[in-house]
Amino acid sequence: MKRVLITGPSGFIGQHCVQRLLAEDCEIHAVNRRGAGNTDPRVNWHATDLCDAAASRTLIEAVRPSHLLHLAWEATPRLYNQSPENFKWLRAGIEMASAFGEIGGTRFVGVGTSAEYQASLAPCQEDITPIQPTTIYGKTKASYAFALDALSQHFKFSSAWARIFLPYGPGDPPQRLVPSVIAALDARRPVETTHGRQLRDFIFVTDVADCLVTLLFASEDGRFNVGTGAQTQIRSVIEHLADSRDGRALLKFGALTPPAGEAPVLVADMSKVKAKLNWTAATSITAGLNSLIRNVV
Amino acid sequence: MKRVLITGPSGFIGQHCVQRLLAEDCEIHAVNRRGAGNTDPRVNWHATDLCDAAASRTLIEAVRPSHLLHLAWEATPRLYNQSPENFKWLRAGIEMASAFGEIGGTRFVGVGTSAEYQASLAPCQEDITPIQPTTIYGKTKASYAFALDALSQHFKFSSAWARIFLPYGPGDPPQRLVPSVIAALDARRPVETTHGRQLRDFIFVTDVADCLVTLLFASEDGRFNVGTGAQTQIRSVIEHLADSRDGRALLKFGALTPPAGEAPVLVADMSKVKAKLNWTAATSITAGLNSLIRNVV
Repeated sequence: MKRVLITGPSGFIGQHCVQRLLAEDCEIHAVNRRGAGNTDPRVNWHATDLCDAAASRTLIEAVRPSHLLHLAWEATPRLYNQSPENFKWLRAGIEMASAFGEIGGTRFVGVGTSAEYQASLAPCQEDITPIQPTTIYGKTKASYAFALDALSQHFKFSSAWARIFLPYGPGDPPQRLVPSVIAALDARRPVETTHGRQLRDFIFVTDVADCLVTLLFASEDGRFNVGTGAQTQIRSVIEHLADSRDGRALLKFGALTPPAGEAPVLVADMSKVKAKLNWTAATSITAGLNSLIRNVV
Repeated sequence: MKRVLITGPSGFIGQHCVQRLLAEDCEIHAVNRRGAGNTDPRVNWHATDLCDAAASRTLIEAVRPSHLLHLAWEATPRLYNQSPENFKWLRAGIEMASAFGEIGGTRFVGVGTSAEYQASLAPCQEDITPIQPTTIYGKTKASYAFALDALSQHFKFSSAWARIFLPYGPGDPPQRLVPSVIAALDARRPVETTHGRQLRDFIFVTDVADCLVTLLFASEDGRFNVGTGAQTQIRSVIEHLADSRDGRALLKFGALTPPAGEAPVLVADMSKVKAKLNWTAATSITAGLNSLIRNVV
């Protein structure tokens, strides 16, 4: 039986991955600092600080996972992009993949970000668009992608690198775009945003989890986008949310200045994922937003 | 006064960098495991195993370099491409750049490789050609380039990443192409090589050192090729050497099979280096080979 270890299982994306793994025929191990999270009895919890290299190695040697879905990383909303915590996670990820190789693990999925790509008006293609991140988060993720690739080559385990575009959905931290706009609308506060004309590839978090678990049980090596392939203006997402609250008058587009160097367009080309994994996202942006609107109202 | 620390100072390229640094107005510190090398009294030697993170940090804190030229890495001829030693050097490089940032160092030059690039028939451009290494060496170097870039951003030191093409010249390890061909010719042994039709950018090692030291004292951040921009068939290099020994009859092109996935063309586009640093290589392939031929005869 496949023995899966998932790191970062209580994060926004991790929670949905644990849920998605419960539908698979596999033994599930989850690790975080407290050793607790989803209460389904089929999840085996482990309390380990993965940034402690020796503790991380002890865990891997005890669990002996055949499959590893490595989500744990710095993710504090607004701060993660420039945090030095990224360096701790880069080191931790290298140690973890080394230990995984040493115990004879067979499949490792690491999680990267659309922020690894050079800004481009065209959809990002995994093996063509230059990797030219501008944030510490994007750079350490890009660094880890190559380290993982090298470790996978040395230890002969199969590995995939999943570059996630803009996830949203249930469990999204309150500081992030969709929940913060909904909260402001509900409080009848002004919704202060940038101009909102940025094009993004919003992907519903259950689709992210589905894609990651699909990758985990596939055998294709390499880089894969986790997106929908659809381009959505941030402005239209905000307007859609506002319309559900009769809140158009609260919208203050242009009140905030976008961060320097922010990409005007960041959209996934999903043709490689479709061709190699026969996977496409199930949830349209409208369906995803409407499910949130209904749940919150 | 600039205080330079050079790692890997006794390697093929490092020796020439130390020599080149002696022409500059700077204090020179060199570190290797034995703490010895070039006997010029102006070079301050330090004995440290840089793969020992604590020892490396102690060294950086003691020397407090303003400038760091980091050459130390796995380089055993023929073996370095797939050696797990690369992982030790990746970790060591991350620790060293962190320590350098913490002591307030100002300029870091890291050394990468043309093997980071995706094979392409066109000359490799630093910010355009996809990074898609196939060896553990190339992958760990690519990983380190991004880690260094992130550390430089966090600690606010300036950094450049130098991708060296095919260096040759005095001090080249005997197992490598030019010395091994000369040795075989001199012994009147058959010279067994691949078909030799690969196009490469051969760069004379004193030019490599000149480019690296130019980069070290420049302030431009980013990736830079260290090549000549000229394309030379490996076959023509071997024939040129053979002609100096009347040894054409000893050449056995095609006796060896090229490694799987070897790039047919690996040549630098030097326009960025010319534009940003106003640097070009001084030594043509003919001049470089002739100087070796004269020295060895």
